[in-house]
Amino acid sequence: MAALKIDAALARDYTIRKGARFRLAKFACDDAGPFGAEGKSKGKALLAAAAERLSHLQEKLAAQDRWSLLLVFQGMDASGKDSLMSRVFAGLNPAGFQVTSFKAPTAHELDHDFLWRHQIALPQRGRIGVFNRSHYEETLVVRVHPEYLAAQHVPPSLLGADVWKERFEDINAWERHLTRNGTAIRKFYLHLSHEEQARQFLERIDDPSKHWKYNAGDVAERQHWDAYMQAYEATIRATATEHAPWVVVPSDRRWFGRLVVASAVIEALESLDLAYPEPDEKTRVAMTTQRAELQADLDAA
Amino acid sequence: MAALKIDAALARDYTIRKGARFRLAKFACDDAGPFGAEGKSKGKALLAAAAERLSHLQEKLAAQDRWSLLLVFQGMDASGKDSLMSRVFAGLNPAGFQVTSFKAPTAHELDHDFLWRHQIALPQRGRIGVFNRSHYEETLVVRVHPEYLAAQHVPPSLLGADVWKERFEDINAWERHLTRNGTAIRKFYLHLSHEEQARQFLERIDDPSKHWKYNAGDVAERQHWDAYMQAYEATIRATATEHAPWVVVPSDRRWFGRLVVASAVIEALESLDLAYPEPDEKTRVAMTTQRAELQADLDAA
Repeated sequence: MAALKIDAALARDYTIRKGARFRLAKFACDDAGPFGAEGKSKGKALLAAAAERLSHLQEKLAAQDRWSLLLVFQGMDASGKDSLMSRVFAGLNPAGFQVTSFKAPTAHELDHDFLWRHQIALPQRGRIGVFNRSHYEETLVVRVHPEYLAAQHVPPSLLGADVWKERFEDINAWERHLTRNGTAIRKFYLHLSHEEQARQFLERIDDPSKHWKYNAGDVAERQHWDAYMQAYEATIRATATEHAPWVVVPSDRRWFGRLVVASAVIEALESLDLAYPEPDEKTRVAMTTQRAELQADLDAA
Repeated sequence: MAALKIDAALARDYTIRKGARFRLAKFACDDAGPFGAEGKSKGKALLAAAAERLSHLQEKLAAQDRWSLLLVFQGMDASGKDSLMSRVFAGLNPAGFQVTSFKAPTAHELDHDFLWRHQIALPQRGRIGVFNRSHYEETLVVRVHPEYLAAQHVPPSLLGADVWKERFEDINAWERHLTRNGTAIRKFYLHLSHEEQARQFLERIDDPSKHWKYNAGDVAERQHWDAYMQAYEATIRATATEHAPWVVVPSDRRWFGRLVVASAVIEALESLDLAYPEPDEKTRVAMTTQRAELQADLDAA
C-alpha cells in the first residue's frame, strides 16, 4: 500500500517514453493503482494536496518566466476530459493557465498546414497551456475517416502512401523543436473501456440534467471503436518520446485518472529547474532607496 | 448586519451605471461593507459558497452557448488584481475561462488601432473572458504619459484636442456593439489607497519570497498618483453605462474586495436568461433508438 500522497512517482507506471513496443492491451481501463478502494474515498483530499503542490510550482514557473508547459489531452467521447481538467487544475492561478479546445477545423484553418492552428495556441513562457484535443486528431479521427483527409485542401500529390508516417515525423520534429526552446510537453490519453463509454452515454440519455451533453453523432461513432483503438496504439507507438512522453490514464474510475494526471504534471514541473529569480545588484540598490521613500510616505500619512 | 451570503445584492452599492456625476472621493478604499470583522474571518467560506454558485452559472453559460461575459480589471500596481482573480475564479472550469494579461503594446500591436489587440482576445460565446488590464490603459497610463500617445504611430493630424473624448466615444460604441451581440461586460476598478500601496510595496522589499514581484519602475510611478486618480475618475465618468457598468472595488481589505467582485459576477450572469438547451424532436428520437443499442452493447459485454 503506497503512502496516501500524490507525487511524481504515481504516474511512472503509466508513462510511455519509448513508443516502439507499446501495446494498448497491456493497460487496464479500470486500473486503480496502489490505492484500491481507499483511494476512492480519499480521492478528493489527495487531489486537494496535489493541487496545492501544483499551485506552488505554477507560481515559480510564472515568476521565472523561462519555461512553459504544454499538456495535451486526447480520449474517446465521454472519457471525462472536461471534468478531469476542471478537478485537477481548479487550484491553479487562471491568469497563468489556458485551455484551448480544438473542434472540427474551420475553412480558414484548413487553408493552413495541420499544425498551424495548434502553433498559434501554444502557451507563452511562464504559462501552462492545455490542448483539449490537439494536433493528434490528425492521426486519430482523420485516420479513421479518410474522407476528412481528402477535405483538407492538401495538394493530392503530397498525400502518398507514407502520409501517416510523415505526419508522425512532422509532429515529433515539431515537439522536439518546442522542447529545445523551453516548452515541456506531456500527452495524456484517457483510456476508457467500450462498456464504460456505453454507461456514460446512457447517463446522458437517462438524466435530463445531462441532456445538453448528449450528441447522437458521438454515439454513432462507436461503430469505429476498433479503428480508433488501432489509431491510438499506432499514434502512441510513433510519438511517445523521452522529451514528450504519453501518459496512458486509466479512466473507467475517474477519481484514479485524476490522481495520475496530477502526478504526471507534478513530475513535469519538477523536472524543470524552476527557481524564483534573484534581484540583481542594480535592483538591490533601488530597493534600499525606495524603502526609505515608502516609509517616509507612510510616516507622513 | 446582512445575512452571511454572497449574492447579486452586495455589489449594488459599488456599481456605477451612470457615470455623469461620478466622484471617486465618495468611495472609501477600506470599506468593509455590511460584514465588518465577521466578514474577514468568514471570508473564505463566503467566497467558497459564491464560487459554487459561479460554477453552476458558468456551466449553464457554456451549455447554452449564446452569451459570453467579459470582465475587465484595472487598478494601480499592487492593488491585488492577480491574487483576487486566483481566489474568486479558482472554482471555475478552466476550459471555459480565459485570462488575457495586457502588457506594454508590442511594435506589431502599435501598428493597429488601439482596440485591435483587445478585440482578438474577446471570449467566444459560452465563455468567460478576463482582461487583466485592458483597453482602458489607453485613457489611463497613456493619458498620464502623453509620450506614450506620441509613440503610437497614429497620424499626427488625428491626435487633436478631442483625443480623450474621442477615445471614450469609441470605447463606448465598441462596448455597446459587443453587448448588442451577446457579450455582457462588467468593469472593475480596484480602489487602493496611496498608503496601502506603500505597505504592499514595502512587503515586496522586506519579504525575500516576494522579491520577484518587486519592480523599481512600479514604485517610481507613485509620483504620478494624483494624475492617475484624475484619469480614473474621468474614465469611469465617461464610460460607466447601463450595459457596461464599472464596479469600484474597495481594495485595502482584500477579503472584502473579493466578495464584491464575486457578487458582481453573479449579478452579471444572473441578468442573462441562462438555461440548459432542450433536445429537439429529432434528438429525442435518436435518444430512444440509441438507448436500446447502448443497452444491448452492455448486455453483450
